[in-house]
Amino acid sequence: MSEAIDLSKKLTTFAEYFSPRTVAQYNDCDVMVAKLKGEFIWHKHDDTDDFFLVLKGNLEIELRDRTISLAPGQMYVVPRGVEHRPVAKEEVHILLIEPTGTPNTGDAKTAAPRILA
Amino acid sequence: MSEAIDLSKKLTTFAEYFSPRTVAQYNDCDVMVAKLKGEFIWHKHDDTDDFFLVLKGNLEIELRDRTISLAPGQMYVVPRGVEHRPVAKEEVHILLIEPTGTPNTGDAKTAAPRILA
Repeated sequence: MSEAIDLSKKLTTFAEYFSPRTVAQYNDCDVMVAKLKGEFIWHKHDDTDDFFLVLKGNLEIELRDRTISLAPGQMYVVPRGVEHRPVAKEEVHILLIEPTGTPNTGDAKTAAPRILA
Repeated sequence: MSEAIDLSKKLTTFAEYFSPRTVAQYNDCDVMVAKLKGEFIWHKHDDTDDFFLVLKGNLEIELRDRTISLAPGQMYVVPRGVEHRPVAKEEVHILLIEPTGTPNTGDAKTAAPRILA
C-alpha cells in the first residue's frame, strides 16, 4: 500500500455490500471503502467516532432524532456513543475511517471481518 | 458541524493556498480541506501519518526516493517520519486528516494556524 490508492479501482475489486475493504492505514485507523445497499442495523461505537464520506450515490444516516442525507462529496462524522443506521436506497460507495479492530456493527460478535482490498 | 458537510462548498469559503480549514473533527483528528498551488516545503511529522485525498486537480507528493502522483479520487498516506513535499502545478483541492494540533509544516514555528471552515 505504498503508492497512490485509487478509490474507484479499489471499489471494482469486490461486490459485497456492508463488507468494508481496507485500502490504507492511517495512524491506528483503517481507511476503508465499502458498498452499501439497503438498511444496515442500528448500532453505536462507544469508543470511536465514525467517519463517512460518500463517493457515489446517496446515503442516509439515520440518527434517533433526525436523518443526515449525504450526496457524493459530502461527509459526516457520527460522534461516539450516538446510535445510527446507514440506509442506502440504491447502491452507495463510501470512504470509511475507523480505528483498526472496530467492529462495523458496534459488536464484535456480528461484525464483518476486516479485509484488505 | 452537526449536519452534512459538503466539501466543495467548504472549499468555496476561502482562497488561500496551504491554509487548511477544519470541517469536522474525528476522534482526536481534524478533518480539513485545503487548496494547494505551487511547492510546499520539505517536511515530516515524527508522530503522525499524513492523510491526503485529492478532490480536484493533480497533486504530486515528492518523497526523497520517488514521487506519488495523485488524481481526483486518489489518496495516499505518508507514513510518520517520512520527508515529503506536496507540489501542485495547478490548483489542487484536498481532504487532509491530521491529529488536532499537528503543525502542517512539521514545525510549530512555521505552521499555518488551524481555522474552522
